[in-house]
Amino acid sequence: MPVRPSILQRKIVAQSRLFKVEEMHLEFANGVQRHYERLVSQGLGAVMVVALTDQGEVVLIQEYAGGMHDYVLALPKGLVEAGEDLLVAANRELMEETGYGARQLEPLTQLSLAPNYMGHKMQVVLARDLYPCKLEGDEPEPLEVKLHPLDQLGELLGRDDFHEGRSIAALYIAQERLKQDDSWQGQGNWQELS
Amino acid sequence: MPVRPSILQRKIVAQSRLFKVEEMHLEFANGVQRHYERLVSQGLGAVMVVALTDQGEVVLIQEYAGGMHDYVLALPKGLVEAGEDLLVAANRELMEETGYGARQLEPLTQLSLAPNYMGHKMQVVLARDLYPCKLEGDEPEPLEVKLHPLDQLGELLGRDDFHEGRSIAALYIAQERLKQDDSWQGQGNWQELS
Repeated sequence: MPVRPSILQRKIVAQSRLFKVEEMHLEFANGVQRHYERLVSQGLGAVMVVALTDQGEVVLIQEYAGGMHDYVLALPKGLVEAGEDLLVAANRELMEETGYGARQLEPLTQLSLAPNYMGHKMQVVLARDLYPCKLEGDEPEPLEVKLHPLDQLGELLGRDDFHEGRSIAALYIAQERLKQDDSWQGQGNWQELS
Repeated sequence: MPVRPSILQRKIVAQSRLFKVEEMHLEFANGVQRHYERLVSQGLGAVMVVALTDQGEVVLIQEYAGGMHDYVLALPKGLVEAGEDLLVAANRELMEETGYGARQLEPLTQLSLAPNYMGHKMQVVLARDLYPCKLEGDEPEPLEVKLHPLDQLGELLGRDDFHEGRSIAALYIAQERLKQDDSWQGQGNWQELS
């Protein structure tokens, strides 16, 4: 790996309730100096949940997205609270936003948002063996829950309101993960037959 | 689609050289009022390039990512300039960052970053029929170019320095796009044989 630039100076140059912008004065290994800006990560991390019904459908929510001032389809997600286990946080967000709980939860992958400008990484959790369980969340209005077959991703990608990079990556990775299960099961069956 | 909340008031609450934060005072259709913050998109849009060699390898760059203060593997990307066609911008960024130009370019998909907090969307372009062509960019140090077989995505995802949601989504979508080509070609061959 290359040698990271030296940070000659860093300071907060803008701040609001949710966002904090840091400027870094950098010197690269070749002597070139630059000023970079980045958003400073706050909070304890975030989780995104790929929850699958027994029929192989993924649980999506339709919610208002302030950045676009429009409604979008999204995977349930939210912030991890103080002292909260990652999988517990995933299950809580799932219950609050979709009305499902999961008996089986496993970490699937970690996805970054925009490494050039943010340190933020989101933990993606695969949730299965669902049951009805509604927790009260802090949403301004009830979220609409939609189910979509995971093996028909192309149709989902063709929609105007489903476009977030991390959600799309998470669903493809979940598909790959399930193929592993299938191939293990396939292998198991084959061994039983031989 | 649900009725979007009314924007009762909006104002800029923080600003730096690169980032501008807007606060919106919203009233949802059910009467609930909330204050949301979002980053205001600046510039003319951005492009990300999935460039494929004739051997089916995707062209990646290793670059310093300020948000993580570390080097990451990434797809070539950059901002569209004033008056610049999208595909021209994609080819220019490809030339600047990787030393390849492409004779064949096509829009692949649009990916959003974080719709709850940003309006930002990135145009992903598929680039093929590559040739050597180096343009000077504005990078502080030369970028290292890496090639990785597109059909071995799992290996790439297993790396510690490849984790950006949009890049991963773009590569899976490119794979799907190429399968379409293959199935057309397959169909063509079949028709010739019949």
